[in-house]
Amino acid sequence: MNKHTSLSHIDNKGRARMVDIAHKPESKRVAVATAEVHMKKDTLNQIRSGNTKKGDVYGVAKIAGIQAAKRTADLIPLCHPLLLSHIEVEMSDSELLGQEKQHGVTITATVRSTGKTGVEMEALVAVTTAALTIYDMTKAVEKSILITNVRLVEKSGGQSGDVINTQPQP
Amino acid sequence: MNKHTSLSHIDNKGRARMVDIAHKPESKRVAVATAEVHMKKDTLNQIRSGNTKKGDVYGVAKIAGIQAAKRTADLIPLCHPLLLSHIEVEMSDSELLGQEKQHGVTITATVRSTGKTGVEMEALVAVTTAALTIYDMTKAVEKSILITNVRLVEKSGGQSGDVINTQPQP
Amino acid sequence: MNKHTSLSHIDNKGRARMVDIAHKPESKRVAVATAEVHMKKDTLNQIRSGNTKKGDVYGVAKIAGIQAAKRTADLIPLCHPLLLSHIEVEMSDSELLGQEKQHGVTITATVRSTGKTGVEMEALVAVTTAALTIYDMTKAVEKSILITNVRLVEKSGGQSGDVINTQPQP
Amino acid sequence: MNKHTSLSHIDNKGRARMVDIAHKPESKRVAVATAEVHMKKDTLNQIRSGNTKKGDVYGVAKIAGIQAAKRTADLIPLCHPLLLSHIEVEMSDSELLGQEKQHGVTITATVRSTGKTGVEMEALVAVTTAALTIYDMTKAVEKSILITNVRLVEKSGGQSGDVINTQPQP
Amino acid sequence: MNKHTSLSHIDNKGRARMVDIAHKPESKRVAVATAEVHMKKDTLNQIRSGNTKKGDVYGVAKIAGIQAAKRTADLIPLCHPLLLSHIEVEMSDSELLGQEKQHGVTITATVRSTGKTGVEMEALVAVTTAALTIYDMTKAVEKSILITNVRLVEKSGGQSGDVINTQPQP
Amino acid sequence: MNKHTSLSHIDNKGRARMVDIAHKPESKRVAVATAEVHMKKDTLNQIRSGNTKKGDVYGVAKIAGIQAAKRTADLIPLCHPLLLSHIEVEMSDSELLGQEKQHGVTITATVRSTGKTGVEMEALVAVTTAALTIYDMTKAVEKSILITNVRLVEKSGGQSGDVINTQPQP
Repeated sequence: MNKHTSLSHIDNKGRARMVDIAHKPESKRVAVATAEVHMKKDTLNQIRSGNTKKGDVYGVAKIAGIQAAKRTADLIPLCHPLLLSHIEVEMSDSELLGQEKQHGVTITATVRSTGKTGVEMEALVAVTTAALTIYDMTKAVEKSILITNVRLVEKSGGQSGDVINTQPQP
Repeated sequence: MNKHTSLSHIDNKGRARMVDIAHKPESKRVAVATAEVHMKKDTLNQIRSGNTKKGDVYGVAKIAGIQAAKRTADLIPLCHPLLLSHIEVEMSDSELLGQEKQHGVTITATVRSTGKTGVEMEALVAVTTAALTIYDMTKAVEKSILITNVRLVEKSGGQSGDVINTQPQP
Repeated sequence: MNKHTSLSHIDNKGRARMVDIAHKPESKRVAVATAEVHMKKDTLNQIRSGNTKKGDVYGVAKIAGIQAAKRTADLIPLCHPLLLSHIEVEMSDSELLGQEKQHGVTITATVRSTGKTGVEMEALVAVTTAALTIYDMTKAVEKSILITNVRLVEKSGGQSGDVINTQPQP
Repeated sequence: MNKHTSLSHIDNKGRARMVDIAHKPESKRVAVATAEVHMKKDTLNQIRSGNTKKGDVYGVAKIAGIQAAKRTADLIPLCHPLLLSHIEVEMSDSELLGQEKQHGVTITATVRSTGKTGVEMEALVAVTTAALTIYDMTKAVEKSILITNVRLVEKSGGQSGDVINTQPQP
Repeated sequence: MNKHTSLSHIDNKGRARMVDIAHKPESKRVAVATAEVHMKKDTLNQIRSGNTKKGDVYGVAKIAGIQAAKRTADLIPLCHPLLLSHIEVEMSDSELLGQEKQHGVTITATVRSTGKTGVEMEALVAVTTAALTIYDMTKAVEKSILITNVRLVEKSGGQSGDVINTQPQP
Repeated sequence: MNKHTSLSHIDNKGRARMVDIAHKPESKRVAVATAEVHMKKDTLNQIRSGNTKKGDVYGVAKIAGIQAAKRTADLIPLCHPLLLSHIEVEMSDSELLGQEKQHGVTITATVRSTGKTGVEMEALVAVTTAALTIYDMTKAVEKSILITNVRLVEKSGGQSGDVINTQPQP
């Protein structure tokens, strides 16, 4: 098994450790992640109508996502602290999400940094926290909301090469 | 539209607000949530073999889930601070997850509290943070890991009645 | 000097301490605080026009105020941790603030709790953090923004009697 | 309207966003902010006499200000995380503050960093948190304390030029 | 092996878990812990002379201990969040600490709460954080400072009976 | 008294301050710290047997130590925020700890960073928090556990020269 395909957080005795990044060069890092929140048609309509008035559900979820991305190293035990230079969280809603033509919201987060390690966890933390905030703000009207398809869309920068997950996950 | 089906976090001018729970009686609250982490067979096998030695991936993810549940009100803007009396995070892995017979890990969190508001957000924060930790610890070997089917399984306690989401989400 | 007029955070040797509230009865607590953000006419107009579109400056500031109120015991060293049952942060803007007829925004926070100690610090933390967020979001267009008249408007509940600061502060 | 006078936190669709600072050069940054805490003569005398013994009110407020400055990105949603190289918080008290000849305390914070964005929010967070801590430690003796004139005094470093707010705010 | 002598944080499969305290009655809890910081005579004299002027080393360490106690559940993974009603941190210095007649400082923390679980961890977190703060503020003059004898002195309240560790630890 | 032997956190008026590190060059920093947890033979045997099954006490303590090291600037008031590149926490247990031949666990933390200030506080925070976590997870079986000999073992990088504390502390 070569270095690129072993679990880098597990040392050779199987113990958890934080990967040493001191020797890595700094590079510009970008990561994009998405998540979907599936819900009933009525629930989505209520978000939309509330949203038309004051934009609040999406506005609150966006701030929650940005704030959580800045705390990634606090939440994910073996993540390194990073100085993020840009966090963007966007929502779009649709009546045709995924294979099941679900009603719901797609959240996309883009995170940038210049540093020694990538920012995919920051982008994933942003989309999940934004999704959980949408859940929290709509749970009074529906108990069966589903957060799904949380995934990395693309990343660039760093030694391990760029990644583009073009195909939709099953 | 009756009280039960309006967005309780949005006031009558469409603005975000924290729901006032001062008048609610205290009751014993339980919530159970699950999430799935889908991955390739090789990735799961690496977790399992690491796990056999020292149990680390699941051990770290469990602690991350418990710690995040305690910080729910810090992460989700309109959540109330709560005194949790119990948090349990469990993992099981399988080669037959979901309709697509995926390899992966199912995370289940059970949260208990005695208080004026429910603990479903705490259970959902626990499973998503545990799932993100598994993602972080395996991302060196696979870039296409998917976190999916994050959902409330059941909740009890409080005025709005018990909830059991027996049917698997599509 | 009687008990009501000594500094309760300073013990009889002049050292800082956290006041012991174990013996206090629980009661319903409410506190209302306000702050003003003074700015140029053009700055206020830009917030207003941005606000008309998507409500963002006030929406972000409101969430910042709510989140900060929940962290009061983390920020103010001798504050006790509390379980808040309600936090509301509201903005209104005017062209005639204070004696100088300033353009600007008035922020009002109302905080409720049932507990052994008051919530005035939580209301004051909410208004100052919301004011600082407005400052942050407008500092690119004006360097002379002023946050002023941060004060307790009223409080009720607890042993020390209700307080109403009706008179505008000079 | 040119770039310098638009709200940089609001994108061209009016949505809140974190400004991208990846392209900015690093420079030495300094910001100085002040705040005033107005109070009755007796309250100030109690702080002073307590202060003479052990220096506690000012000592606690100074630590609170330094600690809060380090958490600015956690409190102000669209602030970038920064590595501060220096934080200094100083207090002076007077019987002739402002136009009304108020008794009270002036707090001054100086923050330094080498980075891609300025530190004025860190200095403003430091002075407001120190002011709130003075409020908290004296609120048992006076309910009408006022925090006022929170403002940037000067900043240097960065593209937008140095700022000196020499004139006292009204 | 009976219930009282098994590791309550480890379930019967050997996995870490947070103990469920929902069924426990509330009672008044007190815990007292101490720590010692051993140092050279010159280092202690510098603290003392600094202390005589403005009391700063001990003042800062005391605030650090109080603040850390409030965050115990954030630091110690399986601790429950608690509402503390009182935290007191005191220092005394001596030239005859322990069997080796060391120069140094003894830190004592007393924590009180009314709740379902004890506060010994909060008291221990307070004394260790205060000790680390003394270390931090004196490390420029001595590299061989030792933090030692961190222990519970007494606790009362709760089902498991009161504890008094009267004998000095070896 | 020369600059190297004065308390750098105390300014020339005896007031606490954060040392300005803006002028310092960046260098590779390493610090190693240790702590011991002394306990009865039975307590250690219970950790060991639990540890053989799933490794939990040491696994949880290690994660707690890593997480706390990342928050050092939040806990120790005058510490600067740092970007750590590596944190490693290791445990070994023995029946012959120290001069008294105690049963117990030795915790060693190694922290690395490239920056303007050292990482000894981060290493010390890691070992004390790991030790407190072991205490928390075993306190149900023994009330007389002792955390002791918390000390810096070595540090390198920076202006003040390398430090090796070879001699065991008394």
